[in-house]
Amino acid sequence: MNIVLSPEASTVLPGVDRQQLAADFEALAAITEPHKPWTRRSFSPLFLEGREFLKARFAEEGLTVRLDTAGNLIGRLEGANPAAPVIMTGSHSDTVPGGGRFDGIAGILCGLAAIRALKAAGHGLHHPLELVDFLAEEPSEWGLSCIGSRGMAGALGDGELALAGPGGETLAHAITRIGGDSAQIAAARRSDVAAFVELHIEQGPVLEARGVPVGIVSGIAGICRLKVRFEGVPAHAGTAPMDMRADASLAAARFALGLRNATRDQQATGLFTATAGVWQIEPGGANVVPGAAEITVDIRAESDAAMTAYLTQLAVLAQSAADAESCRLTRLQQLSRTRATPCDPALQAVIAEAARALGHASLPLASGAGHDAAFLARITRSAMIFAPSHEGRSHCPEEWTEPEDLARAADVLALTLMQLDRQRHDAGRG
Amino acid sequence: MNIVLSPEASTVLPGVDRQQLAADFEALAAITEPHKPWTRRSFSPLFLEGREFLKARFAEEGLTVRLDTAGNLIGRLEGANPAAPVIMTGSHSDTVPGGGRFDGIAGILCGLAAIRALKAAGHGLHHPLELVDFLAEEPSEWGLSCIGSRGMAGALGDGELALAGPGGETLAHAITRIGGDSAQIAAARRSDVAAFVELHIEQGPVLEARGVPVGIVSGIAGICRLKVRFEGVPAHAGTAPMDMRADASLAAARFALGLRNATRDQQATGLFTATAGVWQIEPGGANVVPGAAEITVDIRAESDAAMTAYLTQLAVLAQSAADAESCRLTRLQQLSRTRATPCDPALQAVIAEAARALGHASLPLASGAGHDAAFLARITRSAMIFAPSHEGRSHCPEEWTEPEDLARAADVLALTLMQLDRQRHDAGRG
Repeated sequence: MNIVLSPEASTVLPGVDRQQLAADFEALAAITEPHKPWTRRSFSPLFLEGREFLKARFAEEGLTVRLDTAGNLIGRLEGANPAAPVIMTGSHSDTVPGGGRFDGIAGILCGLAAIRALKAAGHGLHHPLELVDFLAEEPSEWGLSCIGSRGMAGALGDGELALAGPGGETLAHAITRIGGDSAQIAAARRSDVAAFVELHIEQGPVLEARGVPVGIVSGIAGICRLKVRFEGVPAHAGTAPMDMRADASLAAARFALGLRNATRDQQATGLFTATAGVWQIEPGGANVVPGAAEITVDIRAESDAAMTAYLTQLAVLAQSAADAESCRLTRLQQLSRTRATPCDPALQAVIAEAARALGHASLPLASGAGHDAAFLARITRSAMIFAPSHEGRSHCPEEWTEPEDLARAADVLALTLMQLDRQRHDAGRG
Repeated sequence: MNIVLSPEASTVLPGVDRQQLAADFEALAAITEPHKPWTRRSFSPLFLEGREFLKARFAEEGLTVRLDTAGNLIGRLEGANPAAPVIMTGSHSDTVPGGGRFDGIAGILCGLAAIRALKAAGHGLHHPLELVDFLAEEPSEWGLSCIGSRGMAGALGDGELALAGPGGETLAHAITRIGGDSAQIAAARRSDVAAFVELHIEQGPVLEARGVPVGIVSGIAGICRLKVRFEGVPAHAGTAPMDMRADASLAAARFALGLRNATRDQQATGLFTATAGVWQIEPGGANVVPGAAEITVDIRAESDAAMTAYLTQLAVLAQSAADAESCRLTRLQQLSRTRATPCDPALQAVIAEAARALGHASLPLASGAGHDAAFLARITRSAMIFAPSHEGRSHCPEEWTEPEDLARAADVLALTLMQLDRQRHDAGRG
C-alpha cells in the first residue's frame, strides 16, 4: 500500500508494514507473566526481557540504541544535520498488573513501523529522529508513574529518587540497576527536542462509538484526588428507629449521586469526569447502621478553571449531604492535584492534516488518562495520536485495538513525523 | 425501700437490694477478656468462669442449680406445689466480642435480685420459679445464636448440632463439653412452663428519649436478610465519558436511599427498619469506575404483612435503581427470614400493672433485636421488660444503663413474677 500525499506535500510514502507490525505486537505482548496476562511490570526481569526484544528490533531497523541516565531506552536515527533538534516519538513498554496487549507498546511499535516506512520512502531526514521507551509510565512499585519522562523533563528530584520499593530498594538504586545512572539523573534532562508526538490507544469508547479511526488529543486532563469522610452514629440495625439514625452510608450515597449530577454542568468545558471509585463503609456489619463512610474521589478536567469551580461546588455538596443525613463531614482532603496540559496546537494541526491526506476521519478529543506526553510538554511541543479501543476497555486482558486501526494510526504518525522534519526547527523550548 | 402495691394486690414487697445488684453486675462484668472489654464469648473458659460465679450466687440465694441437656444453666426455687407449671425468667451471660456490661446479664442478675426480694417478702410461692442463663444467645463461633433457647424450644436439630466451629469442633461436641448432653438434646425441650418473662436492656434510644424507665415489649421483630448485587461496566475513571458509564456504585447509592425512604410508608405498621450495613464496591480502585456493587440489607418488622409488602417494593426499587444507572440487577437473594413474634398480651398487661403499681411510667415498644424470649414463645406465653440504654448504644463498651433504672426494672420483674404466681396456672402450651 502506498500513501498518496496531498498536492501540497507532493510525496508518496509507503504505508507501514502491516505484517511486521502485527508480528512485533505478538512478540512483545507474549513477554508476560504466564499466569497473569498481560503483565510486564517495570523494573522486573520480564520488563528487561521486553527491552532486549526492543533493543534488537531497534537495531534491526538501523537505530542507534542507548539508555539515558533516567533509564529511558532510546533508539536514534541520524538525520542530515546531527546538530538539528530532535523529533521524538515513543511511549512505554511496562504494563499494569493484569493489563492489556496495547497500552504503552502501541506507541513504541507503531513508532518503529513509522520509522521503517520513512526509511523505505527513501527521502532522508533532516533532523535526528528518536524513538523512546519511557521507563515506568504506569504506577510502579515505588508509588510513582511516568518515571522516565519525569527524568527527561528534569522532574525527578531527590524526593522521588529516595522512594522505597519492594525489599526497601530505593528508586535511585532501581534506575541504576536496570541500566540508568541515577547519580547523573540531571543528564537525562533534554533541551534539544523540537517536538514530541506520542501514539497511544484511547482507553475510552469515544472513537469506536463515533466510528472515527484517528483521535487527535487536544490536551491531557488535570487530575484531582480527594478523600471525603462522613461520620454518623453506629447503631443496632433493629433497635435504632429510622428517624433517630445518622447513617453515614446514606450521606455518602447522596454525595456520590450529587457528585455525578454536578458534572453535567461541566461537560461544555471539555473533558470532565468525577468518579467515586473507593468506598469504605464502617463497621460493615449486616446488623449495624454504618457509623462512617469514606470515599475517594477522582476528578479529571481539561479545563483547570472548570476543575476549580467544581471543587468549590463539591465542598458544598459534601456538607449538604452530611447535613441531610444528620452526619458530620469530618474530612474533605485534597490528596493531589495536577494541572491540565494542553497539546501543542500547531502539532495537532500537522496530525490533522496527515490524517486528512491519508483519507482518515479524525476527531479532536482530550485524554482523561495521564501520559508521558504531559511531562514532555514541559520541555518541548507535545501532542498525541489516539487509536480506538474496543468498548473503551483498557488496563485489563480484554483491551483490544484492531490491527488495521493500529496500522492507520502508525501511517498518520509516519506522515506527521515526515512533515515535522520538513518544517525546519530550532532547538526545543527546554 | 418498700414497694406499696395497688389496693387490689394489698401487699408490700420490698424493693430489690440495690447494693447487692450493683455488686453482682460489677463482679460478673469483670469476668472479661482483659484487653478487649467487655468480652465473654460463649463456650470459652471465661464464659465457664462466669457460670461458676452464677452457680455460686444462685446457690447462695437458695436456688437448686442444674444444667439441662442443651447447656442452659437453671436455678430453681421450689414453690408450695412442685407439680405446678414453672414460672420462668432469665436471659444470657455470653457477649459479643467487645460488647457491653449489660446486654444479657441484666436479665439474669435482675432476675436473681427479684427472687431475693420475693423471698424477703416471705409470702411463699405456689409455683416453682426458674431463673435461666440461656446458652449462647449472641451469634456464636458456630454461626448460630440463641442456642440454649432453641434447645429448650425443641428447635435444635441435627443440622444445627452438626455445625462446625473453631478447630472443627461440632456444636454437639461443644454443648457436651460445657456440661450439656447433646446426645439427649430432646430432653431439654420443656412443656411445663406457664410463663416466661425476660428482662433486657433496650439497646435502642426510645425509652431514654421519651424519659420513660420501663419498656413493655409488644413483640419481637421478624428479620429478613438479603444480598443485592448490581453490575455495571468497570472503566477507566479518566477515559470513560460520564454519559457512557454504567457505574454500579451509583445504582447501589440510589437503591440504599430508596430503601430508606420506602420505610416511611411502613412506620404506621409498628417497628420497621431497613439497613444497608455491608457495602462491597468493586474493584475499588481510585481510578476505576466501579463495575459491581453488593449490599447486604437487614429488614426488621413487627408486622409480617408489612415485611412482605416491603419486600415486593424493594425488588421494584432495586430494578429501577439498576435501570436508572444502566446497570444490571444480578442478584436479589433472600438469605434468611424469621417471622415476627408477638409478646403475650395478658403477660404485657401484668407487667404494665406492676409498673403502674410501682409508680413507674411505662411504654409499649417492639424489639428490633432478637431474644431468647422469641424461642420461648414457641413453648409458653412469653414477654419482655426493657430498661433504658443510654443513647441507645449496645454491643459496644459504651453500652450503659443507670443502676437505678436496672433496679426499677428488677422491681417490676419481681412484682410481675409474684402476680403471675398468684394467678393459678395450668401447664404451658408445649
